[in-house]
Amino acid sequence: MPSFTPNTRGVCATPHIYADGLNAGLKTNGNNDLAFIYSDVVCEVAALFTTNKMLAAPLQHAKAKGKIKSNFILVNSKNANAVTGTKGIADIDTIMEQLQAHFGGKLVSPLMSSTGVIGVYLPIEKIVAGAKRFDLTRQEPMNAAHAIMTTDKFSKTIAFDVTCDDGSVFHIGAMAKGAGMINPAMATMLCFITTDINLPQEQVQTILTRVNHTTFNAASVDGDTSTNDTVFVFNTRQSSATDASAFEAALYKVMYFLARELVRDGEGSTKLIDYRVIGAANDREAEIVAKMMSNSLLIKTALYGEDPNWGRIAMSVGASGVACQESTLTIRYNDVVLLDKGINRFDALLEKRAAAVMKLPAFTVEVDLGMGNGTFTAFGCDLNHEYITINADYRT
Amino acid sequence: MPSFTPNTRGVCATPHIYADGLNAGLKTNGNNDLAFIYSDVVCEVAALFTTNKMLAAPLQHAKAKGKIKSNFILVNSKNANAVTGTKGIADIDTIMEQLQAHFGGKLVSPLMSSTGVIGVYLPIEKIVAGAKRFDLTRQEPMNAAHAIMTTDKFSKTIAFDVTCDDGSVFHIGAMAKGAGMINPAMATMLCFITTDINLPQEQVQTILTRVNHTTFNAASVDGDTSTNDTVFVFNTRQSSATDASAFEAALYKVMYFLARELVRDGEGSTKLIDYRVIGAANDREAEIVAKMMSNSLLIKTALYGEDPNWGRIAMSVGASGVACQESTLTIRYNDVVLLDKGINRFDALLEKRAAAVMKLPAFTVEVDLGMGNGTFTAFGCDLNHEYITINADYRT
Repeated sequence: MPSFTPNTRGVCATPHIYADGLNAGLKTNGNNDLAFIYSDVVCEVAALFTTNKMLAAPLQHAKAKGKIKSNFILVNSKNANAVTGTKGIADIDTIMEQLQAHFGGKLVSPLMSSTGVIGVYLPIEKIVAGAKRFDLTRQEPMNAAHAIMTTDKFSKTIAFDVTCDDGSVFHIGAMAKGAGMINPAMATMLCFITTDINLPQEQVQTILTRVNHTTFNAASVDGDTSTNDTVFVFNTRQSSATDASAFEAALYKVMYFLARELVRDGEGSTKLIDYRVIGAANDREAEIVAKMMSNSLLIKTALYGEDPNWGRIAMSVGASGVACQESTLTIRYNDVVLLDKGINRFDALLEKRAAAVMKLPAFTVEVDLGMGNGTFTAFGCDLNHEYITINADYRT
Repeated sequence: MPSFTPNTRGVCATPHIYADGLNAGLKTNGNNDLAFIYSDVVCEVAALFTTNKMLAAPLQHAKAKGKIKSNFILVNSKNANAVTGTKGIADIDTIMEQLQAHFGGKLVSPLMSSTGVIGVYLPIEKIVAGAKRFDLTRQEPMNAAHAIMTTDKFSKTIAFDVTCDDGSVFHIGAMAKGAGMINPAMATMLCFITTDINLPQEQVQTILTRVNHTTFNAASVDGDTSTNDTVFVFNTRQSSATDASAFEAALYKVMYFLARELVRDGEGSTKLIDYRVIGAANDREAEIVAKMMSNSLLIKTALYGEDPNWGRIAMSVGASGVACQESTLTIRYNDVVLLDKGINRFDALLEKRAAAVMKLPAFTVEVDLGMGNGTFTAFGCDLNHEYITINADYRT
């Protein structure tokens, strides 16, 4: 078994990687809004992009490269550069040409990533002026992690040194942003991962896609799917480690942690819920039910009210359309069984015990369909007044 | 063209039909919670039921009858009799046996309909005691309409006398309830329609199913699908009118009005939005986009904030997965064009005009995909603090 030693170096946990963040004037409160990640060796980049068909300009720009080898990404918050047409893509090239001149031609196939309001052109001058203030030899991963936040209340980073069974060592570090417009339809946010595992690009891409399915794609805050969602894995390939299963375990640890952090920070979220579905006819049907529950407004508001109204769970299971029936349905909140193969166990004592579970900051709603062996766990949060307040006038 | 004369007689607009409502003690505030509809001739009953697989007991009870001929339905609010197993169904028979004895055997294949909390057994004694107080010769349709309300703020009824081109006359009257757990997946609420059109049961059923597609099934408040949704058409067949197209026009008028009333009364709703999609590859894809928008939390909260953040409309169109592209996408709020075939027309003046549209109690968000001739209109509302307040602790 590989051993994992956590550290606080974020995306800079991987040698050769530099990162920083600053305020370029996009956020009017002075908070960081512009970040870079730079590598002094060229990286192989594995990537996942949103399934939203209104693909934002930076994603179109990156996808046009095909297999990506790059050593630089510029990330801004407050403006998504989405639904901005061909101008949105040209703006990225304009920015990168000016930065290339400024940084003495050091940038290899530079990338950009953006998050914020849709349908507004990038403030090119502010961004270029801000980026020119960057020092590519600085390692300030927390500054970078703060710069990519929008409605996030806290930054999200994680990093490990990983020692494989053969004694070889590799590194993995990551930062992510996301709190709203979170829905399981790819990787519902921005996530930047750095590593030095010595595995070929195709293999990293395959592992990334597989791990994404049960991590970011299992997360939902509001069921809305961003135009900008991206996961990038920048791989320097500078370590001697070639243990693919250790890398997959490490990537899972990183992405599972960050996916749940997104939901824990879901706009207004006060609770993190694992919707665990077992006993479905197959894994795909379990996934459908788990995601249906995690997106139900009536379940989310009952969670906020700490009301053990398990009838809404049964409603959502039935609405999912998968193979299910009342007589085999079991519903648990942690270890408290509320419906037992269709038999209602609810009484005053059980209601009190269920309500106590619901007061926890994190718990599991488990649904056993009693139809087969399919399982899936989705991550969701509650819905409350703060979500409304945040989103009623997001642009101002 | 048939002529429609509106009246205020609700479900009692059809001769031979009686209805009333009272408080049987389910609602503790003294409001009506129990209603009946009775006909002194036996009706042919057309019906639609929820697609939710956790079918509530009254729906299982009614479906077991096959083709329904009945002259009586008892409706209660505050308890859905859903996820109550075989006891839930037996409870209905128990109630009806006692009422049959009380009403001297007048009831033919009596039906029941319930709405309210899921997973709680019916309070049989309260319901029977309440129903025994009914006088089957009373015509108090507004008492009945009030008795079926749950979180509804206002009752929903409509009625017409219809004169066909050949001079024959028929009647149609209806009441509906619904404000939350509203999603287009059948008829997302309870609706009781009475008529005396002289058309066979099968034909009424076919017309009902067709009309439902663009009325109740186009409505969404919260994207959650009830276990109890039902539409019943009680047909005395006592009129001489046999004009099927006049009946379809009348049924459409009734169901269109009630579907939009449900959404206008959506929990916390302050606005009624028609999401009109045109230019889709086909009608089915237009429907997918229209419903996607009507269920998007980010669109709903922007509507509440009266923020013309049309980027969220583009986001939702792209997330729907149907054939679409930025370069042919047009977005209008009433007559204000915000995105014109991918070109952003947004400026300070346009934002002011769009914001003015958004202050209206009802308006149209029109999306032209520019891909074909498919069209569909869905009905939706905004999402705000009151929805959260209503649903955080619905049971108390």
